[in-house]
Amino acid sequence: MTNGFKVVGTRPKRPDGVDKVTGRAKFGADAAAPGMLHASIVRSPHAHAKILKIDTSKAEALKGVKAVVTRADFAEGLTGENWNILENVMAGDTALYDGHAVAAVAATTALAARDAAKLIEVEYEPLPHVTDVDKAMAADAPVIRAGAADKSVPEGMHPNVVRYHESGHGDVDKGFAEADLVIEESFKTEATHQGYIEPHACLAQLGPDGKGEVWCCTQGHFNVQKVCAALVGTETSQLRVTPSEIGGGFGGKTVVFIEPVALALSRKANRPVKLVMSRSEVFRATGPTASTSMDIKIGMTREGKITAAQGVFRLQGGAFPGAPMEFTAMCAFAPYALENVHQIGYDVMSNRPKQAAYRAPGSPMAAFAVESVIDELCNKLDLDPIEVRLKNASKEGTKASYGPKFERIGLVETLEAARAHPHLTAPLAEGQGRGISCGFWFNHGGETAVSLALSEDGTVAISVGTPDIGGSRASMGQMAAEELGIPYENIRTTVADTATLGYNEISHGSRVTYASGLATIKAARDAVKKLCARAAAKWGIDEEAVVWEDGCAKPSGPNAGEFEPLPLAKIARSMGRTGGPIVGHYEATPEGAGVSFATHIVDAEVDKETGQTKVVRYTVVQDAGKAIHPTYVEGQFQGGAAQGIGWALNEEYIYGEDGRLQNSGFLDYRIPVASDLPMIDTVIVEVPNPGHPYGVRGVGETSICPPLAAIANAVSNAAGVRLTELPMSPPRILKALNDQANG
Amino acid sequence: MTNGFKVVGTRPKRPDGVDKVTGRAKFGADAAAPGMLHASIVRSPHAHAKILKIDTSKAEALKGVKAVVTRADFAEGLTGENWNILENVMAGDTALYDGHAVAAVAATTALAARDAAKLIEVEYEPLPHVTDVDKAMAADAPVIRAGAADKSVPEGMHPNVVRYHESGHGDVDKGFAEADLVIEESFKTEATHQGYIEPHACLAQLGPDGKGEVWCCTQGHFNVQKVCAALVGTETSQLRVTPSEIGGGFGGKTVVFIEPVALALSRKANRPVKLVMSRSEVFRATGPTASTSMDIKIGMTREGKITAAQGVFRLQGGAFPGAPMEFTAMCAFAPYALENVHQIGYDVMSNRPKQAAYRAPGSPMAAFAVESVIDELCNKLDLDPIEVRLKNASKEGTKASYGPKFERIGLVETLEAARAHPHLTAPLAEGQGRGISCGFWFNHGGETAVSLALSEDGTVAISVGTPDIGGSRASMGQMAAEELGIPYENIRTTVADTATLGYNEISHGSRVTYASGLATIKAARDAVKKLCARAAAKWGIDEEAVVWEDGCAKPSGPNAGEFEPLPLAKIARSMGRTGGPIVGHYEATPEGAGVSFATHIVDAEVDKETGQTKVVRYTVVQDAGKAIHPTYVEGQFQGGAAQGIGWALNEEYIYGEDGRLQNSGFLDYRIPVASDLPMIDTVIVEVPNPGHPYGVRGVGETSICPPLAAIANAVSNAAGVRLTELPMSPPRILKALNDQANG
Repeated sequence: MTNGFKVVGTRPKRPDGVDKVTGRAKFGADAAAPGMLHASIVRSPHAHAKILKIDTSKAEALKGVKAVVTRADFAEGLTGENWNILENVMAGDTALYDGHAVAAVAATTALAARDAAKLIEVEYEPLPHVTDVDKAMAADAPVIRAGAADKSVPEGMHPNVVRYHESGHGDVDKGFAEADLVIEESFKTEATHQGYIEPHACLAQLGPDGKGEVWCCTQGHFNVQKVCAALVGTETSQLRVTPSEIGGGFGGKTVVFIEPVALALSRKANRPVKLVMSRSEVFRATGPTASTSMDIKIGMTREGKITAAQGVFRLQGGAFPGAPMEFTAMCAFAPYALENVHQIGYDVMSNRPKQAAYRAPGSPMAAFAVESVIDELCNKLDLDPIEVRLKNASKEGTKASYGPKFERIGLVETLEAARAHPHLTAPLAEGQGRGISCGFWFNHGGETAVSLALSEDGTVAISVGTPDIGGSRASMGQMAAEELGIPYENIRTTVADTATLGYNEISHGSRVTYASGLATIKAARDAVKKLCARAAAKWGIDEEAVVWEDGCAKPSGPNAGEFEPLPLAKIARSMGRTGGPIVGHYEATPEGAGVSFATHIVDAEVDKETGQTKVVRYTVVQDAGKAIHPTYVEGQFQGGAAQGIGWALNEEYIYGEDGRLQNSGFLDYRIPVASDLPMIDTVIVEVPNPGHPYGVRGVGETSICPPLAAIANAVSNAAGVRLTELPMSPPRILKALNDQANG
Repeated sequence: MTNGFKVVGTRPKRPDGVDKVTGRAKFGADAAAPGMLHASIVRSPHAHAKILKIDTSKAEALKGVKAVVTRADFAEGLTGENWNILENVMAGDTALYDGHAVAAVAATTALAARDAAKLIEVEYEPLPHVTDVDKAMAADAPVIRAGAADKSVPEGMHPNVVRYHESGHGDVDKGFAEADLVIEESFKTEATHQGYIEPHACLAQLGPDGKGEVWCCTQGHFNVQKVCAALVGTETSQLRVTPSEIGGGFGGKTVVFIEPVALALSRKANRPVKLVMSRSEVFRATGPTASTSMDIKIGMTREGKITAAQGVFRLQGGAFPGAPMEFTAMCAFAPYALENVHQIGYDVMSNRPKQAAYRAPGSPMAAFAVESVIDELCNKLDLDPIEVRLKNASKEGTKASYGPKFERIGLVETLEAARAHPHLTAPLAEGQGRGISCGFWFNHGGETAVSLALSEDGTVAISVGTPDIGGSRASMGQMAAEELGIPYENIRTTVADTATLGYNEISHGSRVTYASGLATIKAARDAVKKLCARAAAKWGIDEEAVVWEDGCAKPSGPNAGEFEPLPLAKIARSMGRTGGPIVGHYEATPEGAGVSFATHIVDAEVDKETGQTKVVRYTVVQDAGKAIHPTYVEGQFQGGAAQGIGWALNEEYIYGEDGRLQNSGFLDYRIPVASDLPMIDTVIVEVPNPGHPYGVRGVGETSICPPLAAIANAVSNAAGVRLTELPMSPPRILKALNDQANG
């Protein structure tokens, strides 16, 4: 697929580089408007409590206060997910978790708003609470919300179990019977936060005419538009949402939290309202991952063939339905071609904030559990972990563990590249262990609209509707440059607001380079068609007799060579006189996002005295389909690994007995800093996705699927004891070593 | 044409009404960015002077100053109009008029910037100057710029005459010989300013990577983009320009003045720079109208037939070429079907700011001169001024005085409506006089791009590229509602920035309701086609077998009645699953803008002791083709009349002997206030323009063509003396009365 590309596959300069290093980039909190108010949110200090009364009178009397809102200031009569979102954005009659919003205030200064928030008196009646996934399923667990379960849940389950998933094929009992060794193991992982550096921030205004504007940092401004319109009760098209530059999201900014609150305050005050979360609010009240409890059972022959695999995945997603347990279940065994496989998922509610997506939501935990058991099987059967995975690897035509038949996929190629990588045979020092893991993610297409307009000087403006969270402005420019035959530097890609483009799904599901990229290519081809038509008209020949080559319209067929080639800039210069502006468009819901696989190799060192762990070497091998801008692809690979290291080793939500979050800041919630990380090596494998013109597969999410498992395998091999709980923080490692020592 | 319209022709609420009365609308000066600097411009105090030296060192040393720019900080090697614009934006080696920019400074506060501006030391060598059009053509006039004249200018003219126009047909000498009465008269009009309430304001940033952003109040942000890119030397597509709400423009905001200066300062400081003009700067250094000197000669028979007409039009356009003398010449006799007509135009440079468009640029002055002479002919021949105009009126098929053959036009209809209007027969009080006048404007099409996107809730976002200067967001919404069959209230029209839409010409030439309207209708039809295709796919029938009626797709022909009609909202709700976002697009350069005519009736009262004049009754009759939103159309009619009253009676640029502007503020430059104006009655005539689907003709400019003449006729009839100079301020009226008395 690399054949013949001129721009795709090269590494041009980041279009946002100067913006970001010079401070020119405008992030969420950088928006300002004349007469702007500042807002503050009052949050529940209880994990679970009835809200008996909210007295806002003292706050309203404070100088500078212009509006106070509670749940009564939002739309009524919502149902389904919109109701859930509203309930999360502003509590109704019950506070469901520590940090749950119960009221908000807007004032002329941020200080006055914070002071006023303290004057809002909320009378609570505390209720019993539960924050652990297993405890939330137990018979004596307090019920978070009666009647929240859907019809999928089998009878007899606790009401906190709200959704149920089951899938698989074959006969696992028969498969286990055929195995030479069956290992059954339970695992737990704690909730982690995406750890984006930029807290949620927005500036919003909404008038009595139902027209409003929102500027915010988000991964999906069209979704913000739709959700906010519903929550404040206006029409979608009357609300214009403009995304700022985004300081990290990783799934956590696919969700609406503060924007409807700012809108409701603005409507009441009839002034623009700015709302910026503190770090503590980000931890307490946005969406971390689900925490999990998982049981894995895998049978293997002496030769390394997996005969059967079974998994039970319980995900706690906070006080609302939606934990991605079906993704966990479906991804768990996807790397392997299995005759007998069975997976069950439970979506469990507890008194925690509503979970949100975090890179390949649900998949990393599944890989942690499954790949740990495979590692243990390899250890016990003395088999090479790469060879075992190759023997069982899914290929084109494999019936996936979750149902469909795979098209062309690249798992085998990543395993072969890993096998050939010097990392795999490098010597390990004393106290070090090596682990490998495979990982899988579906990737996604989704609704997409792109426009591509020519300027008179022959430069090009691309307008996409997907916020740039991983370099998409560069890759769109490259793909358009490739199609148009002009330099990458002559193109500027802009993330358009909701008023100026068709609907675009959120930047999630690793969909952007695939779907917006496909739409950019198609929009460029639409523009090329129009360029050729102008040339044809000028030459007086048929449009079909004009081809586009090297950035020029050229006569072809019987007319070949008859006219001088017309470069894009020349056609653009006269477009006003030859029919008007030339713009290419494309709108679609592309459905050929190719699934992707990765294989990671990790060396870890464990200090058995302190329980401290260090990742000393890390190699990511992943199938990108086609790397449009390899540096960004490598960046995704490295970022996924880095976040995986944090998740595996130190990050976790720590709730006290009182159900309150104890570590709502970066001092106590330990994401890895540069000194915690080794250089992360990367190998880009390119097995083209047949569903994209250039073969692109999403890369952003798959890169976080293997790390938890690969690190756990490395640490377990280094420590000589199997770690089954994340994070593998020093206390947990010491406990595991102690437990082993104590038999 | 009104048959069958449901939304078009009604008067729904202004979409920007709440914004504007509550202060939510963001105008040019409302933009802000983190780290923003404030700028100030140093301007020449001389009408004409060599710039010997600019010492910026003291300014640069001032605390808070971050950048100083002079001409050296802009692009080199520009030619043609770009060079002219740059020379006007920042003087080169010569200051050409009082107020000409010579340097600029950006500092952390507006005060520091103004202080620093005072510290910039400019050494000038004053040169002789000229500001009057006739004097500028005289042999002894100082030369503004040698070699500026183009090839059209006949030999032997003064070098300040830079362009020449001549047109007409027939034999005027033969025509004058056939007349019973020939009147020859000279007229002068002074320069006037558009008087927009909002001064020019912008916020700009430009980085070392050539990428920049501009927020500004403008009538044409795509033009700002193109011009600024050229002047600062970057690519058009790398500069993103977002228009603010606009506080009046009337042609004066079609021009770039401060944006390139802010960009150059920003590039030097690498910070955003805000630049807001003071009122005095607006008067001294933006573009007023040209001042004129005109000679008119018309011959008429006793029966009222015009046998010949001739005009010489000298327009002073400031220190640059571009005074719209060809428009003045071409519009002058356009209302009349003439066998013998001849017009000459001169574009004359002087030491004044570069003139800019002001509603129908050049036409009102021509009407003043021509219609004054016709009024005098009617008076002397005792003919009815309406009947004379009807007898000579241009009609469909008339060969226009400026060349082409008229298509369907509505002059006769406006005259007939005026004749039937009670105003024409109302009694006049002592000291009052009545005047009528016709007026003409071409109207314009121009490059246009519109997109129209559906939201899932069935509401619609229209994206246009023409700033809303006269209610176009309402009229676009109405036309789209008409096509789509949904309520007007479900649509929001947004003026999109340059990054997100194809090129759109400036909002000028009364082109917006015509051209953006046509494009909106076509984009809506494109969306309808896509909606019908979705219905066809759902029903499994041919796309051609689906029709769109009352906001629904319906099966037609053999399938009629076979399926339930599918309303837009229902198709929109599932669009993501049925093929993706539904967006209609249209890009073109429509060329069927219909010319338009108006007839105004004015009663004026003159106090012969003080020379004070009062307009006591005013009626506008104008052909709108089709009034989409009659209230806005009436607003344009009234606005044109109101501005015409100011121009006719009091507004003028007053230059001293030193060539400096003496009245650069609203205290001394007298625009009419509410108490100066009568209620202005309006009559909308609708003679459909065959070049628009609904028959729309532009209305914004024609409404200012007749007032100067109609008022002059009324005042002359009231005063008993012909007024040949504008404005007819008290001193001029007294002088005319004295001259007559002494005469």
